[in-house]
Amino acid sequence: MSVNQVEIVEVGPRDGLQNEAVAVSTADKIALIERAVGAGLRRIEATSFVHPKAVPQMADAEAVMAGVPRVDGVSYSGLVLNRRGFDRAVAAGVDEVNCVLVASETFCQRNQRMSVGESLQIVADLIDDARAEQLTVSVTIATAFGCPFEGEVPASAVVDLARAAAELGVDEIALADTIGVGVPMQVSGLVAAVAEVAPGIDLRCHFHNTRNTGYANAVAAIGAGVTVLDSSIGGIGGCPFAPDATGNIATEDLVYLLDRSGIDTGTDLGALIAASDWLGGVLGATLPGQLSRAGRFPPPAAN
Amino acid sequence: MSVNQVEIVEVGPRDGLQNEAVAVSTADKIALIERAVGAGLRRIEATSFVHPKAVPQMADAEAVMAGVPRVDGVSYSGLVLNRRGFDRAVAAGVDEVNCVLVASETFCQRNQRMSVGESLQIVADLIDDARAEQLTVSVTIATAFGCPFEGEVPASAVVDLARAAAELGVDEIALADTIGVGVPMQVSGLVAAVAEVAPGIDLRCHFHNTRNTGYANAVAAIGAGVTVLDSSIGGIGGCPFAPDATGNIATEDLVYLLDRSGIDTGTDLGALIAASDWLGGVLGATLPGQLSRAGRFPPPAAN
Repeated sequence: MSVNQVEIVEVGPRDGLQNEAVAVSTADKIALIERAVGAGLRRIEATSFVHPKAVPQMADAEAVMAGVPRVDGVSYSGLVLNRRGFDRAVAAGVDEVNCVLVASETFCQRNQRMSVGESLQIVADLIDDARAEQLTVSVTIATAFGCPFEGEVPASAVVDLARAAAELGVDEIALADTIGVGVPMQVSGLVAAVAEVAPGIDLRCHFHNTRNTGYANAVAAIGAGVTVLDSSIGGIGGCPFAPDATGNIATEDLVYLLDRSGIDTGTDLGALIAASDWLGGVLGATLPGQLSRAGRFPPPAAN
Repeated sequence: MSVNQVEIVEVGPRDGLQNEAVAVSTADKIALIERAVGAGLRRIEATSFVHPKAVPQMADAEAVMAGVPRVDGVSYSGLVLNRRGFDRAVAAGVDEVNCVLVASETFCQRNQRMSVGESLQIVADLIDDARAEQLTVSVTIATAFGCPFEGEVPASAVVDLARAAAELGVDEIALADTIGVGVPMQVSGLVAAVAEVAPGIDLRCHFHNTRNTGYANAVAAIGAGVTVLDSSIGGIGGCPFAPDATGNIATEDLVYLLDRSGIDTGTDLGALIAASDWLGGVLGATLPGQLSRAGRFPPPAAN
């Protein structure tokens, strides 16, 4: 790891809460975002502008965006799957739109109700308008490390999508392990292959800890040159394809690992742990993040 | 990772069960060992020959050893802290003794009730007799990545102990993250430093997943050339210094990661998951290992 700085995108308010069984109030969503910003996080996936019938947990997208703290240097992103969602996101005042491509045709049909080609066309149709609105355009390639329906996803499918996204001129491409099946060697190989076809474009990685490989994958991604990682406070998120499984890698556990590796994230571990404790109370659950239970090391008092 | 084979030492019957709140019968301990052997594991830390008042969970060490399946190529190890324990281990028919050195003076005093120098002297006193009995001698350096009392442990303390153990002629040196605080960059650095002072001696690593760094540490160890790793079925073990925290890295989750990385462990993942499910029933708990909950990938039926 020659990287000495990593940017964390806090995805708890969107990918996290969307996959939790407990419904969370708009006020608590905003409180979570305030805590994230207070802990030093500067990129927040705040919500998703999808049809409220498809994802009822995100029906309050506009209300959430209306309540987030506007702090210099903090960027809010909204997930967008079509023109209607894009228009809503712009009206709600996001700084960044995150579009989704899917590396598996079956998953794309079942989850987005469109073909992979159609999902790419949506990005193509939106990008000029996003530029005109001075929005950052991020594209997340879902199921990049495996598909619950098709099994192994060929690296070539991911690389082809990344090349197409790069040609469209997106600002950032993310490789997402949607169902938490990836392993570190796969991460190293795929990041290298994607970097080759997307020169000059920021790469981000999105890992779930479903099978306990998430943090090892994060380290592998950094080793391959990735400097932007998604995570969620408390490790919330679950996995819709493995109901008892854990969710995203936890922001506080990732920061612990990076802090002790001399990699700066600009965040405050104590504040992240406090946010995780608070969120566990809101959700009425023991969250997967482990720093809350195990405690920091060395203990803050010993510093 | 240029390694293509990793040997796993199953530590569930000793380090795992010793730190679980539920007492397990001798019959269930033997059943666990039978399942481990049945799943292809070839090195088992079967028990500990310590004073039954100090560790009541291991009071049945002789009975466990009397009941383990004797299979060609399977080696049973017993933890030994002094001459009395060594004599008991020999009489009980272990194939390997595992002695403990501690990199932190305070931890050594509090946990072993002796100084670091005295613990090294015990290895020195036993090694000729172990040779005479044709036993493998393994030495585990505890708190190698941090101490609950002293905080950061200087790498030089670990290196000095490793050098001393190497000069005594032990067969294998293990670096143990006793309280689960290590991070991958620390692992890479420490393994390289120890390898330098212990040329020709096998290195093993022992990681706990207390702060979600255990699997990343395992990958880092392999990257640094380590080919022997400890783990426990189900990830049992807990951490006496963080009561709510998880334990050892789980054998089945480690094997999942290695299998999908093309690294052979000689074990059967399905049998390991079945053993973990069974052990969860014995302990009446959801164990930290995640493969049981999340399922294999690709699903066996799709293979």
